[in-house]
Amino acid sequence: MNNFDLELIAARLEALEETIIHRFIDRAQFAHNEPAYLPKHSGFAGAEEDSLFQVRLGAQERLDAEFGRYMVPEERPYTTGLPAPRRQVVVPDTGIARMQYDCINQTSKICTAYLNCLAALCQSGDDGQHGSSVEHDVAALQAIARRVHYGALYVSESKYRNSPEVYREFIRSQDAQQLLRLLTRPEVEDAVVARLAAKVERLQAHVNRGIRRTIGPELLVEFYRDTVIPLTKAGQVAYLLRR
Amino acid sequence: MNNFDLELIAARLEALEETIIHRFIDRAQFAHNEPAYLPKHSGFAGAEEDSLFQVRLGAQERLDAEFGRYMVPEERPYTTGLPAPRRQVVVPDTGIARMQYDCINQTSKICTAYLNCLAALCQSGDDGQHGSSVEHDVAALQAIARRVHYGALYVSESKYRNSPEVYREFIRSQDAQQLLRLLTRPEVEDAVVARLAAKVERLQAHVNRGIRRTIGPELLVEFYRDTVIPLTKAGQVAYLLRR
Repeated sequence: MNNFDLELIAARLEALEETIIHRFIDRAQFAHNEPAYLPKHSGFAGAEEDSLFQVRLGAQERLDAEFGRYMVPEERPYTTGLPAPRRQVVVPDTGIARMQYDCINQTSKICTAYLNCLAALCQSGDDGQHGSSVEHDVAALQAIARRVHYGALYVSESKYRNSPEVYREFIRSQDAQQLLRLLTRPEVEDAVVARLAAKVERLQAHVNRGIRRTIGPELLVEFYRDTVIPLTKAGQVAYLLRR
Repeated sequence: MNNFDLELIAARLEALEETIIHRFIDRAQFAHNEPAYLPKHSGFAGAEEDSLFQVRLGAQERLDAEFGRYMVPEERPYTTGLPAPRRQVVVPDTGIARMQYDCINQTSKICTAYLNCLAALCQSGDDGQHGSSVEHDVAALQAIARRVHYGALYVSESKYRNSPEVYREFIRSQDAQQLLRLLTRPEVEDAVVARLAAKVERLQAHVNRGIRRTIGPELLVEFYRDTVIPLTKAGQVAYLLRR
């Protein structure tokens, strides 16, 4: 199996977008719950300076790090200073160039954009379910990060392999702008966003609206347009500059 | 909102079954990976005696316990000896009778049944993705436990409230068998299972079978028939006996 078949990569990205939609819908079942995002309001013994969101994200990522999640190139963490794995993880040779993968890490921008869209995603107010809310935030953030970094690494490596001479020139001159131009295909971006909108509708077509809050496609379309797609491309440029 | 409206409870159970289906499909993307379930094979520093599955489940539940998950009556853990929450969790008055909710805990049987069905759910063999496999196991187990214990607590309390005099007699005589008989509605069970089968098909109707493994409805139907439904009823009896 060729890891860099562009059709296969596109299909994987599509499967990851399904997960993102589900995670957004799951989070939307809870109110915005703003206090869960306020620093010094975690109410968590031993981490009183942080927000509950920060405490949960850090705790989950420390656990995941010990199990070896971040040894996988496309799994980039939101937290720094994570512990080393406590087990040996055999990462198969993916064909992605070896480097410090955190040089492509876009999580800080993903996190800001995600938190900014919660007000539109969720009902306003406080339903008291802060623990569940931040648990679902972490699941959503992990799904988004996986999508962005998988796209950043695999799409750019695939495109590079298809026309190395074209890319090599701009890599040599470290011309981020020209690399970004080469990687940009507006018609593909439009198709992704249109497919996403249709999927948001389809995945909620049969739900019982009496007990499940549904979400409109606009929010996810905007999140893809303004965050997922540009950050994937930023990650691609970062990868190619170091390839 | 009346927590014990049977129609509302049924709708919530239906939403939880959607989550279970998704978690089974997610797990099916990885091979069976049997070594991840062998005691003394965790390869995890500090927990060499256990299986990787046991280590992951325990670690996730300790983290969740610290955030207060198991203060919620229907969230029952698979692990014993969990730490106390490190934050104050305000559990709203649900109307469920107060008791040690672990007397309704069916997780040990859920876990055995789930692990037994992995061979049929997943492709046989070992794809090396042990960390991801056990991470998805934990997500599936949490979804199943929530469904079973929500049904155990809310359905039985609802039925009790609708005809307390009928139930009180058998509660007084501690007659588990008669309680089980009162709670059993074969036509409802058949309808649940039929709906489940249709949903398994529908949720996978549009996936790209080239990259996503799909699962047949039989496996989930059997899991509901042999595990979810009987354990929900066992939990209902356990609850009523102590009500």
